[in-house]
Amino acid sequence: MRGEVLLMLRRQPGGYVSGEEISRRLDVTRTAIWKHMQALKQDGYDIEAHPRLGYRLRGGPDLLLPAEIEAALTTRRLGRSVAYFRCVESTNNEAKQLAAAGCPEGQVVVAEEQSVGRGRLARGWFSPFARGVWFTIVLRPPFSPQEAPKCTLLAAVAVCGAIRRATGVACGIKWPNDILYEGKKLVGILTEMSAEMDAINHVVIGIGINVNIAADDFPPELRSLATSLSLAAGRPLPRLAIFAAVLEELERVYDLALAEGFGPVLAEWRAASVTLGRAVDVSGPGRRFSGTALDIDDDGALLVATAAGVERVLAGDVSIRTPERKE
Amino acid sequence: MRGEVLLMLRRQPGGYVSGEEISRRLDVTRTAIWKHMQALKQDGYDIEAHPRLGYRLRGGPDLLLPAEIEAALTTRRLGRSVAYFRCVESTNNEAKQLAAAGCPEGQVVVAEEQSVGRGRLARGWFSPFARGVWFTIVLRPPFSPQEAPKCTLLAAVAVCGAIRRATGVACGIKWPNDILYEGKKLVGILTEMSAEMDAINHVVIGIGINVNIAADDFPPELRSLATSLSLAAGRPLPRLAIFAAVLEELERVYDLALAEGFGPVLAEWRAASVTLGRAVDVSGPGRRFSGTALDIDDDGALLVATAAGVERVLAGDVSIRTPERKE
Repeated sequence: MRGEVLLMLRRQPGGYVSGEEISRRLDVTRTAIWKHMQALKQDGYDIEAHPRLGYRLRGGPDLLLPAEIEAALTTRRLGRSVAYFRCVESTNNEAKQLAAAGCPEGQVVVAEEQSVGRGRLARGWFSPFARGVWFTIVLRPPFSPQEAPKCTLLAAVAVCGAIRRATGVACGIKWPNDILYEGKKLVGILTEMSAEMDAINHVVIGIGINVNIAADDFPPELRSLATSLSLAAGRPLPRLAIFAAVLEELERVYDLALAEGFGPVLAEWRAASVTLGRAVDVSGPGRRFSGTALDIDDDGALLVATAAGVERVLAGDVSIRTPERKE
Repeated sequence: MRGEVLLMLRRQPGGYVSGEEISRRLDVTRTAIWKHMQALKQDGYDIEAHPRLGYRLRGGPDLLLPAEIEAALTTRRLGRSVAYFRCVESTNNEAKQLAAAGCPEGQVVVAEEQSVGRGRLARGWFSPFARGVWFTIVLRPPFSPQEAPKCTLLAAVAVCGAIRRATGVACGIKWPNDILYEGKKLVGILTEMSAEMDAINHVVIGIGINVNIAADDFPPELRSLATSLSLAAGRPLPRLAIFAAVLEELERVYDLALAEGFGPVLAEWRAASVTLGRAVDVSGPGRRFSGTALDIDDDGALLVATAAGVERVLAGDVSIRTPERKE
C-alpha cells in the first residue's frame, strides 16, 4: 500500500496529488494517507504537504525500501514479500531463518549493508552501505537435491541478463556463477539449500551486485579482483532499477525451468559464459589441474579437456587464464 | 558431572556411597554434591540420604535424561552434548536450529515425546512418551552434497547393527533406511541437510526407534505397518542401552566412512539389507514400476532389474513384495 502511495507521488513529478484523489484511488481514509506520509518522511522522503494542493514529492533517499521495491516490481511471485534491513550480518542467514519458519516462495531479504556478508565456502563479501544490491531470495523448487547446483547456474543467467538489459554493461558468467566484467568480479552468488535426501525443503540464493563502488572504495586486497557497474559504465547507476530487473529475470528463468526443465536455462548459460573455450585452472577439493573448458553437462558440471582426458568439475574453483597471466 | 554422580550411585546397587567418597573421587565440594542430589531427585530419582552412611539410589525414572546418557555413553564425540526435552514438536527441527547456531558436531537432541514427529516427505512419525528412542544427531561431514544420501545409508547400518547387538532382534534394512522386523517398520530415519552447492554445512539425522510399544498402542492405520522391539523380543527393553548402542555404532561407522570412504559402509549395508534380491514396487517421483532389487551402486542408488532394463532409484518409495501380498 505504501508503495502505491509512493507511486502516485512519483507519477506526478514536481506536481501535487490531492489527499482526496489518493483516498479515492486507493480506497483508504485521509487519516491512513497521513500515516503513510509520516512513515515515508521517516524513511527519508522529502514530502511537502500543502493544505489546499495536497502532497508533493521533492526527493527521496537512495535506498531499497520495501515501498520502492513494491512500486518498481512487475513480478508475480518473486519479491512480493520483502524483509528490509539497513544493516544485517548476512541476508542469506536471515533468509534461511525465514524459510525455516515457513515464509512464502519468492520471499526477499534485502539489506543496504551486510556486516558479515558471505561468499562461497565461508569467504567474505564486501557489502558497503547503499553501494550495491545485497539480497537473498527464497525458492521452494520441486527439483531433487541433485539438481540444486543448476539453480545456481539459473541465478547466474538471470543476473547476467538483467544487468546487460538494465545497464548495458557487457558482463559474462564464469563457471559456476560469478559475473565478471573484463575479468573482474561484478557479482557473487551464494546458493544454499535445506533438503531431505530426495526432496528440497528450500533454496536460498544470495546475490551481491557491486553497483556504485569506486575503485578506491574496495579493500586493497580486492582491487585487482573486483569491479563495479559504475566503474564499468563510467557513471552512477540506479540500484532499484537493477534490483527490479534481476527479480524479473529470475522469475522468467525460474518459470522457464519449471515449465521446460533446465535445458533452455543451460543453453542461456552457455551463451552468456566467459568460461567455455578458455584455458582454465581448476583447484580443489583434493585436486588441481589445468585444461580447456569445453562445455557444461546436463548436471551443470564443467567439462575440462586435459592431457589425461576430460575431467568433470562439480565443486571447487575455476580461474580463467588470461593472456596477461600467462606471461 | 551429574552423570558421574549417578554412575557412582549405580555402581553401588542397594548400598550407600558416602558424600566424602564422592567429594574425593570427583573433586567437588559437599555442597556441590548436595545440589546434584537435589537435581536428580527433581528429575524423579529416588535417592535416600542417610546422615552417616551417605547416599543410596533406590530407583529412577525410565527417562533418557542427560545424566543417564552421560553415564551410559562410551563415545568420544557423538552424543557428548545433549539437548533434552520431555516433549518437543520435532527433534529434527530443534537440531536444525542448534546446527544453524553453530553447535558442535555430535550434538544430540533427544525427546521423550514428539508432538509433531516427522518422517520423510512431511509424513508423520508416531512418537509416544517414553516408549521409544526419538532423537536427532548433528554431523558436519566433509562430504559433498551429492554424497549426502549415503549418510542416510550409514545411519541405517549403525542403527540396525546396534539393535541386533543390544537386543538380539534380527532386524534388516529396507532401502534406503527403514529398519524392518518381519516386514514391519521398527525404525524410521529422516536425514536432512543444509548445504552450499559444493559443501555440506551440516546434516541432521533423525532416528525414531519403536521400543516399548504394544500392538494396541499404535494408531489403527499403523498396526499392519509398524512394530516395536518389545513386540519382537517378547519383553520390555531398556531404552537407554539401545540409545547408547546406537550412538556407539554411529560413531564407529561414521569414523569408518571418514577414514576409508563409503565402500565398507555400503558393504555393511548390503549385508544387512532385506531389499536386495527381492521383488519390489517402486513409486515416484513421476514413475511407478516393479522389478527385482539387484544392488546399490556407489552413490547409494538402488538398482532394480525390470523388463525394460536396469532402473536406478535415488528417490521415492520402495516396497518389498511379500509372498502374502502376491496372492
